[in-house]
Amino acid sequence: MGDGGTEAKNLVLSSRMRGPGGTRPIVVKLGGSVITDKSRKFCVRREVLKRLAEELAATGEPLVVVHGGGSFGHPLASEYGLRSGLRERSQLIGVSLTHRAMEQLNGYVIEALQGAGLPAVAIQPSACAVMERGRIAYMEIRAFKEFLGLGLVPVSYGDVVPDLARGVSILSGDQLVVYLAQKLNAKRVVIGVDVGGVYTGDPKVDKEAKLIREITPEDWEKMEKSIGGARGPDVTGGMANKIRELLELAKCGIEAQVVDATRPGVVKRAILGEPGMGTRIISR
Amino acid sequence: MGDGGTEAKNLVLSSRMRGPGGTRPIVVKLGGSVITDKSRKFCVRREVLKRLAEELAATGEPLVVVHGGGSFGHPLASEYGLRSGLRERSQLIGVSLTHRAMEQLNGYVIEALQGAGLPAVAIQPSACAVMERGRIAYMEIRAFKEFLGLGLVPVSYGDVVPDLARGVSILSGDQLVVYLAQKLNAKRVVIGVDVGGVYTGDPKVDKEAKLIREITPEDWEKMEKSIGGARGPDVTGGMANKIRELLELAKCGIEAQVVDATRPGVVKRAILGEPGMGTRIISR
Repeated sequence: MGDGGTEAKNLVLSSRMRGPGGTRPIVVKLGGSVITDKSRKFCVRREVLKRLAEELAATGEPLVVVHGGGSFGHPLASEYGLRSGLRERSQLIGVSLTHRAMEQLNGYVIEALQGAGLPAVAIQPSACAVMERGRIAYMEIRAFKEFLGLGLVPVSYGDVVPDLARGVSILSGDQLVVYLAQKLNAKRVVIGVDVGGVYTGDPKVDKEAKLIREITPEDWEKMEKSIGGARGPDVTGGMANKIRELLELAKCGIEAQVVDATRPGVVKRAILGEPGMGTRIISR
Repeated sequence: MGDGGTEAKNLVLSSRMRGPGGTRPIVVKLGGSVITDKSRKFCVRREVLKRLAEELAATGEPLVVVHGGGSFGHPLASEYGLRSGLRERSQLIGVSLTHRAMEQLNGYVIEALQGAGLPAVAIQPSACAVMERGRIAYMEIRAFKEFLGLGLVPVSYGDVVPDLARGVSILSGDQLVVYLAQKLNAKRVVIGVDVGGVYTGDPKVDKEAKLIREITPEDWEKMEKSIGGARGPDVTGGMANKIRELLELAKCGIEAQVVDATRPGVVKRAILGEPGMGTRIISR
C-alpha cells in the first residue's frame, strides 16, 4: 500500500467534504444511574446497556456518547475526597483508582456498542482536558471531530481531570455533554436518566411530584429549589446541576431533552427528534 | 471545603515550584513482546508485569511508562489493514476493536502498577494526538505534564490515532516514547525488550549474533541492514525501526538504553542509571 494510497485518501476526503461545519452529531448522555446499579459498587447493568446500544445503532445518526460514573467512579472519588481537589499524596492512588474504574465502566459501554455493530471509540477526557476550579479551561477536541468525521462513534465519560488550581477535579458527564455539544455544534442533546424527566419534586419519594414538560432560563430561578435529585451518591451534583448545565446549552440554541432511558425505545425516539417524551430544556 | 481551599493549593503549588522545566522524568518502554505472549492472541504475562511494576516502584524516580501492543493491538491492526490507513467503512469496526484491545492491555499494566503502589493513570494517545502520514503532527501533552507534576505516573501506549491524510494511523510505542521524551525533556529513556539489547543479527535465530554495546547516528548506516528483528507480528516495524526512532532522540542529547526486560532487576538498574547492561543509543 505504500503511504496509504489513493483509496485511503478517498475515505478521508469524503469525510472532509461534509464542509467546514462537519458532521452535526447528536450528543447522547447515558446516565450513571441508568447503566449501573448505584446501590452496588462496580455493578453494571449489562441488559440495559445492550438494549440502549441497539437503540443507538438503530437510529443511523452520527452520535457522540457520554456516560456518567454511576457506581464505578463516584464511590472512589468520594472515598478519596477528590471533589475538593488534591491536598495530600495519599489521594494520588485515589486518582489512579477512580480513573481506572471509569475506564472499566467505559469498556462495558464500548463493548455493548460494538455488539450492536457501532464502531465506538473511547475518548478519555483526562487525556485531553484541563480544568480550572472545577470548570473545563481547555479541551483538545480534534479526536472527537476526526473520529466523528470518519464515521466512528466517540464515547466519553465523567472523569478525574487535571485542574490548574486544585490538582485534579471531577469532570461530570453533564458538564462534558454541554461542552462537547457546543464545540461540536450538536444537532440536539438527549439526556437519558432513570426517571421520566425533570419533576417538581423527587418522583422517587414524592407521589405528588409532577413532570415539567419544558424549562427555559427564565423559568429556572423559581423552579430550582424544588427539583428532585438523582438517587444514590453522586459527586457531581444530581438533577439540579444537570439542568443548570443544559440551560447554558439552550442559550446557545441547542435543545436538550431529558428522558427516561429505562423505558425501552424512548432514547431512540428522542434521538430521532420525537418531542414530548420527557422534559425539554430550551431557550425561547 | 468550598472551592478546594488552601490545602489543595499547597500540593498544587509544590508541584509548580519545581520550576519551568518541571520534573524531568525517566521514560520507560515496556515492549509488547515482554508483557504479552506474542504467539497467543490477547495473552498477557501477568507475572512479568507484576515483577516489572515492582522494579519501577522500587526506583522512586518520576516515571512515564509507555507500552507496546504485543498480542493485543497488532493482530487486530493487521487483520483490518489499519497500517495503510482507512480505505473502506468495513475497517471502522477494526479501529474500534484495536483501540479497545489496547485499552485492555493498558488496564493490566495499570493494575499491576497500582498493585506495586504506584498511582498510575492511563493517557490515551488517540484522545490527544493527531498524526499525518504516520508521524505525530500534533499532540496535547498537558495531561502528561500535569499528572507528572502532581506525582502520578502517566502510562501511555501504542494506539490507532486519527491521521489527517490517511484517516487513521498506527502510532507505535517507539514513536511515542521518542516524542514524549523530547517534549517532557526526559532525563533518560529505558527500552525494555525481550533480548539482551541490539545485536549484529537476530539473536533468536543466529548464534553468531553479537551484542552491540553502543550505537551512534554515525554508526547506523553501515549497521542497519544486519539488525535483528523482534519476534512475532509487529505492525510497527521491529528493532530497526526502534533504533531509528531512538537515534533521533540521541541527536537531542537524550540517551536511551535498550535492555533485556525479561531478566529480573535489569529495568530497575537501567532506570537508576547503571550503564553497560544492553545497548546505549547515544550521540557523541
